Amino acid sequence: MKNLDLLDEMYQFLPCPTPALWVEQAIENLDLLLIDHAQCEKKAASNAMNLMYRYVDRPDLLKKMSQLAREELLHFEQVVGILQDRGIKYEHISASRYALGLRQHMRKGDDALIDVLIIGAFIEARSCERFMALIPHLDEALAKYYRSLVRSEGRHYRDYLDLALQYAKSPIDDRIAFFAGIEKELIESNDDTFRFHSGPVVE
Amino acid sequence: MKNLDLLDEMYQFLPCPTPALWVEQAIENLDLLLIDHAQCEKKAASNAMNLMYRYVDRPDLLKKMSQLAREELLHFEQVVGILQDRGIKYEHISASRYALGLRQHMRKGDDALIDVLIIGAFIEARSCERFMALIPHLDEALAKYYRSLVRSEGRHYRDYLDLALQYAKSPIDDRIAFFAGIEKELIESNDDTFRFHSGPVVE
Repeated sequence: MKNLDLLDEMYQFLPCPTPALWVEQAIENLDLLLIDHAQCEKKAASNAMNLMYRYVDRPDLLKKMSQLAREELLHFEQVVGILQDRGIKYEHISASRYALGLRQHMRKGDDALIDVLIIGAFIEARSCERFMALIPHLDEALAKYYRSLVRSEGRHYRDYLDLALQYAKSPIDDRIAFFAGIEKELIESNDDTFRFHSGPVVE
Repeated sequence: MKNLDLLDEMYQFLPCPTPALWVEQAIENLDLLLIDHAQCEKKAASNAMNLMYRYVDRPDLLKKMSQLAREELLHFEQVVGILQDRGIKYEHISASRYALGLRQHMRKGDDALIDVLIIGAFIEARSCERFMALIPHLDEALAKYYRSLVRSEGRHYRDYLDLALQYAKSPIDDRIAFFAGIEKELIESNDDTFRFHSGPVVE
């Protein structure tokens, strides 16, 4: 029940659902999706660790980001294992426009922390929403694994948002709405390259 | 028994014991030791993650480094908790000369991987040896915690060394002996600043 509430809240947080065309393309490019998924888990851990270097004076942030990084690393290992089981070679691939497209709007100074936490909440919520969108179309083994990820990614979205609310000195609704607008554009508009967080690719 | 064997092997791997003067200074500077310990755990996780970006084509390395990073992050959280319990403020402090003193001798190209793994083995083995050297002088709570770390840091030393042996195309005994010489100098010679991996400080 609590998990369903969290999921419901997360859907309301996101500005739009994943386009059906992206889901179709994901199923057609499952190898690429899995490689990028592994890469996203590694990057999510790195991003959390970067915050642990930048904000050493915030014990709650240190603890939550370290726990989050550990979970993302565990997922990374699991997805690399899935790649091996399926005979897919894990290799470095270019990043999608998504994270950079959000981060380029970050403010400087004290506000940077609030913005990076809001952006973290969007990335985690979108990941969770995409797992949910993919599950009905996946083979049973992968569907089962992605169902297990929904819970933790949903929790990560909440962790980022709670930290943003905790550290903000004034209401952040406007800032959330601002990033929601950017996020919607990145998710719905045509993209050049298919990735876990890309828009639909229209050549 | 297996743990004792590993410990014995680790003592033989290291070129010298920690100087008694360093142990004395550690007990006199326990707050600083704990702050630097937290920082070392975070850095150990970062270093493991850096290898996960550089060597995406080595599944064994990816898996072992990810597991190691998760353990170091868990230790980071635990040490930050100890700092909080003891009312010690966690803050960024400058790095000791130790890791850089080893890394400046790294070869380029394919050999870089072997060297970085050998250096990783020395750092982990030295950390483990220092925990052991400190335990008899610590209060019971900290002694108990450091005893719990000995096992995992000992395993990390072995993981690094095993990966170096696995990926090397020729014997690495000479290279281990070379870094042992550098390590001995960094551990035994007078240092400017007290840190977890420093030499004894003589003003």
